[in-house]
Amino acid sequence: MSAEADFIAALRALATSPAARGLADDAAVLELGGRRLVLTHDVLAEGVHFLAGDPPEDVAWKLLAVNLSDLAAKGATPLGVLLGYPLGEEAWNRAFVEGLGAALAAFNVPLLGGDTVAAPRVLGLTAIGEAAGPVPSRGGALPGDGLWVTGTIGDSGAGLRALTGGLPRDDFLVARYRRPVPRIEAGRRLAPLVTAMMDVSDGLLIDALRLAEASGVGVAIELADLPLSGPCRRLAGDDVAARLAAASAGDDYELLFTASLAQAEQIRAIGAALGLPLTRLGGCHPGEGLSLSMDGEPLPLPPRLGWEHGGG
Amino acid sequence: MSAEADFIAALRALATSPAARGLADDAAVLELGGRRLVLTHDVLAEGVHFLAGDPPEDVAWKLLAVNLSDLAAKGATPLGVLLGYPLGEEAWNRAFVEGLGAALAAFNVPLLGGDTVAAPRVLGLTAIGEAAGPVPSRGGALPGDGLWVTGTIGDSGAGLRALTGGLPRDDFLVARYRRPVPRIEAGRRLAPLVTAMMDVSDGLLIDALRLAEASGVGVAIELADLPLSGPCRRLAGDDVAARLAAASAGDDYELLFTASLAQAEQIRAIGAALGLPLTRLGGCHPGEGLSLSMDGEPLPLPPRLGWEHGGG
Repeated sequence: MSAEADFIAALRALATSPAARGLADDAAVLELGGRRLVLTHDVLAEGVHFLAGDPPEDVAWKLLAVNLSDLAAKGATPLGVLLGYPLGEEAWNRAFVEGLGAALAAFNVPLLGGDTVAAPRVLGLTAIGEAAGPVPSRGGALPGDGLWVTGTIGDSGAGLRALTGGLPRDDFLVARYRRPVPRIEAGRRLAPLVTAMMDVSDGLLIDALRLAEASGVGVAIELADLPLSGPCRRLAGDDVAARLAAASAGDDYELLFTASLAQAEQIRAIGAALGLPLTRLGGCHPGEGLSLSMDGEPLPLPPRLGWEHGGG
Repeated sequence: MSAEADFIAALRALATSPAARGLADDAAVLELGGRRLVLTHDVLAEGVHFLAGDPPEDVAWKLLAVNLSDLAAKGATPLGVLLGYPLGEEAWNRAFVEGLGAALAAFNVPLLGGDTVAAPRVLGLTAIGEAAGPVPSRGGALPGDGLWVTGTIGDSGAGLRALTGGLPRDDFLVARYRRPVPRIEAGRRLAPLVTAMMDVSDGLLIDALRLAEASGVGVAIELADLPLSGPCRRLAGDDVAARLAAASAGDDYELLFTASLAQAEQIRAIGAALGLPLTRLGGCHPGEGLSLSMDGEPLPLPPRLGWEHGGG
């Protein structure tokens, strides 16, 4: 086990409240007077989650987006955020606030408070949301359910490669890396229909495996059904290697969910209403673990399924 | 203005929700279905809020305590916390989790979730509480109110000096620096009686000035009435210079509050019931700013009133 896995296992032993969901979910769910509060806190660190040269406006956007994405995965409407901000150079601070203001306005989320400190650039943000109905966990998938994903997968990973010289520069892909858009409305509409839901932050494959483990089912993914965007196909290719790279790159902030096959029509209707592709790319079966195929042929799992950072 | 003051002013312009209280308070207050959620997020950075050599167990304690202290100042009962944790050496991680477990148990607060990341040691924690009644702000003090403080002031600053060689080592003072105890029960009982309340994190003088500014009153403090502990007197002295040092050292996590003189008896009864000194050390008057006296003689303000870090 990695140091992080050890640490999270130790934290899990502390998180005995049912609201903590065993730290195995994207967010905590606090029942309060008949309301359901959904709470999440994600951290972005320079050199880990963003590049030193990324525009501060985009870092602000991403910090908000990755947290709202966790709320989206629980079908919750954002109520507000608290910011933990390490003060840096004045120009960076100024641009960050400007970007934060734009991002808060874009998602119509109020800034409620937080803390500033002179320290290395490690930013934390807490987002608070409210769910109107039951809050899907990672752990509810059943054998026979279909496995679905919103949007396209791998754009953000290709954007990062474009920024670091591994691929030609492409504005769409770079924007997908720097300015992900949390699927709040999709999450809200899907929440009543799904058996399990989470956001794809560390990589589709590793996140699908986590969903399988939390649900006690096996998950099978057909790589040919992985939804790839046009720019991603053009620049990064769409052979098996490219599809495995896309499925393990992470930073997608799309929603991964399972639902009984009887819900397929309603799910497609939501996608059509939102103009957002909702793609069935696999299913759940009795058993455990993750298996892959390409055009129906079994495929071994790649050595690396995604990022190990993540946590409750 | 400092870079931090500029930054907070810019953030303030974004925080237009009433729940944010203009980022001028210790915590945000979110009304939800007739319940009052109190939310705070404070960050501790190595070298700023704790020493590199501090025991990790104590850092965990302090991280929890400084956040619960903000809830205490709003009279709120803690409901849970979210942790942002930068992974470091394994031994440090292990000791931190152990200390966190002990601290969570000591305050009976559930860990709900959070995030881990490989990054420099900047820890963030969000605490969520619920207030049973109206939530005192910093801004409600009225001319004629008395100014009170819980416990003793300056112990933590003396403890830091003891750790850094400026004073002889003393276990009580070091514990006050490393393991502050948030005044949750006192805050809960005082909340219905006070006109304004905040916790003393940056220094009694600077925090009293902030209370005065938020309330639109002047605040006068009689330094002879500053409550000093026995160990603090013995090791750091109790002349004017020592009292000014204690009143500007910060990290006290005591509650500073104002109340009409008619409440004095009830306030003293709470102190007696809790075995906690509640000391009236000044009052509010029409006007603005902070003024000091020692045994009734006016005293100029020291150049430094406390720490400038702090924020919403």
